[in-house]
Amino acid sequence: MSSQAPHPTLLIPGPIEFDDAVLQSMSHYAESHVGPGFVKTFGETLTLVRKLFQSTSPTAQPFVISGSGTLGWDIVASSLIEKGENALVLHTGYFADSFAACLEAYGVNATQLKAPVGERPSFEQIEQALKEKPYKIITITHVDTSTGVLSDIKRVGEIVRRVSPETLVVVDGVCSVGCEEIAFDAWDIDVVLTASQKAIGCPPGLSILMVSGRALERFKSRQTPPASYYASLGNWLPIMQNYENFKPSYFATPPTQLVHALHTTLSQITAGSIAERFAVHVQASDRVKAAVAELGLCQLASKPENQAHAMTAIWLPEGLTPPDVLPGLLKRGVIFAAGLHKEVATRYIRFGHMGVSVTSGRPDIDNAIAALKEAITEAKQAKGL
Amino acid sequence: MSSQAPHPTLLIPGPIEFDDAVLQSMSHYAESHVGPGFVKTFGETLTLVRKLFQSTSPTAQPFVISGSGTLGWDIVASSLIEKGENALVLHTGYFADSFAACLEAYGVNATQLKAPVGERPSFEQIEQALKEKPYKIITITHVDTSTGVLSDIKRVGEIVRRVSPETLVVVDGVCSVGCEEIAFDAWDIDVVLTASQKAIGCPPGLSILMVSGRALERFKSRQTPPASYYASLGNWLPIMQNYENFKPSYFATPPTQLVHALHTTLSQITAGSIAERFAVHVQASDRVKAAVAELGLCQLASKPENQAHAMTAIWLPEGLTPPDVLPGLLKRGVIFAAGLHKEVATRYIRFGHMGVSVTSGRPDIDNAIAALKEAITEAKQAKGL
Repeated sequence: MSSQAPHPTLLIPGPIEFDDAVLQSMSHYAESHVGPGFVKTFGETLTLVRKLFQSTSPTAQPFVISGSGTLGWDIVASSLIEKGENALVLHTGYFADSFAACLEAYGVNATQLKAPVGERPSFEQIEQALKEKPYKIITITHVDTSTGVLSDIKRVGEIVRRVSPETLVVVDGVCSVGCEEIAFDAWDIDVVLTASQKAIGCPPGLSILMVSGRALERFKSRQTPPASYYASLGNWLPIMQNYENFKPSYFATPPTQLVHALHTTLSQITAGSIAERFAVHVQASDRVKAAVAELGLCQLASKPENQAHAMTAIWLPEGLTPPDVLPGLLKRGVIFAAGLHKEVATRYIRFGHMGVSVTSGRPDIDNAIAALKEAITEAKQAKGL
Repeated sequence: MSSQAPHPTLLIPGPIEFDDAVLQSMSHYAESHVGPGFVKTFGETLTLVRKLFQSTSPTAQPFVISGSGTLGWDIVASSLIEKGENALVLHTGYFADSFAACLEAYGVNATQLKAPVGERPSFEQIEQALKEKPYKIITITHVDTSTGVLSDIKRVGEIVRRVSPETLVVVDGVCSVGCEEIAFDAWDIDVVLTASQKAIGCPPGLSILMVSGRALERFKSRQTPPASYYASLGNWLPIMQNYENFKPSYFATPPTQLVHALHTTLSQITAGSIAERFAVHVQASDRVKAAVAELGLCQLASKPENQAHAMTAIWLPEGLTPPDVLPGLLKRGVIFAAGLHKEVATRYIRFGHMGVSVTSGRPDIDNAIAALKEAITEAKQAKGL
């Protein structure tokens, strides 16, 4: 039985429900950030991040930094590209607009390749765009939390290496790491940036990055100094290298309790087969998507190949808005999220199905599917639809 | 009795020992960052930050952001001063060098006014420096954690308003907020930036700022856009205003568990008299400093008026280094910190005495004083001193 106080089940696309042991790690007693106990925990955590990314490359480097996932954009924008250089931003929803805004804050020329809501730029369009201009980086939102659209980062990576091999492949994996397959080395990715509170299953407050040797070389050969202090990879690189070698090191005080929680959840995730973890998320997603179809509802993500496996963005029946449906879900003990994509926010809801809610044998997903059916029916009746 | 596992008492100048209720808040179950429960908690927390700073000014604004204290420097450097403008950095230790490095990362001309180790620039020197050049900001480390030197921010503020009234007064209060007196409005300060893990008594992972109306106006009248995305005050301002008005708002996912812990500790701190809290820290500090003198040892901070009340940096007897003394303290259940100031790091240790260790009737400080006496004696004997 859970040691947590009774509460409605949180099934938004992050933060997600937490495992008891992870939450208990959040209450770890005070430790020195440079004492041997914490140094060991942090060092092991960084090595666990490598495992999460299926990476064994000695030149790649994991980073775990106090901040939200958003901070990862600043790290890329201030460290891996310079003022006046070009970035190609593949747009599959809200988060591409924000990443582009972040790049522009650092004087980068961000060109967005947009697709209609629920779709993604085609491989042909991406190839064409890469041929038009030299881009220092391409950014791909692996799963856009606003639309539930999944990008094919493996295939995009292949196109980049063929057409524009010097372009760094930067993946925003905030809503994908821990639930969608990512083979960092094998797919030759340069950066995956993510956050702790989604499929990784740790409370929010950690910006987590995996950075390739190629990207670190790019950082070291900058023409201009990094355009930030806190977000400069250079300030964090020796810190991460030292901790992973079990040597204390100081740039800024690490969030010791959150690192303990990350250690706990990554130990759980990597103790089992990571392939199986991805498969379990696919199975849960299939169940959700079948139930949505059975209800006669459609997803924002228009085709099976671009539908995320850890969340589903669901168009509401004509005439209903999120406030018509979300209270009915809450009454049944389930929390979904409203829409987020500016153009259509009032017309859809989002159902997150990741982490312990799908991996631990909890009844969360089945309960949520049942609640969704009832809440939609009830809302339609109330509106006379 | 504490619910925490047995552990040595952490008496470094941050992170510090945590209250049981604060640690329990870290294990709060998953909540939506935009749901009514968390929105209320975050909104109340921001209002509690105002109380902590004894501020009632409606134009001032508290900020609570996922990140370490270091992030506060980037917020100031990217938001409140522009490339090519001048900053005067008062130097009382390691953290002025770092703040200056941060300002320079954003193209700011940082002029450091240095004092010998253990001292602080004189009021005359500060006044003179302010008359030499127009400075957009002056930065003061309230307590430099590397030296234990306390600055007189009230008096410096008065000088600034008299001599250079347009200069923003920026206080690095990482090691002072919650233990040294700060009257934000009455002393007409523009920014205090701090972190959660020192005298505030919350685990690390929150960058906390109090910003004056004057500083916000300065931000709004910038000639150039903010030089950061994550560290731009403009991206956070509406978020903080909305939460404080109990309206959900999204820029980046807030660290929900840490915010709960901050709410708990700030509720405790502001439930009592804040003046009494400062007085209790002074009393504990007096006891520590008397014991240090009794041992025949000196402090880095050379004069009573520049000695911090929440930590003491202690010169070791000639011939001893931190590794000679710290293990003897740990053997007795107490953790102090080694030196940090580059020039003299091997010659001193640091004793943090703040938060629950001094306010809760715990025997921590008396035990630590006894342990210090024994460890020093033992180390001297071992070295034949």
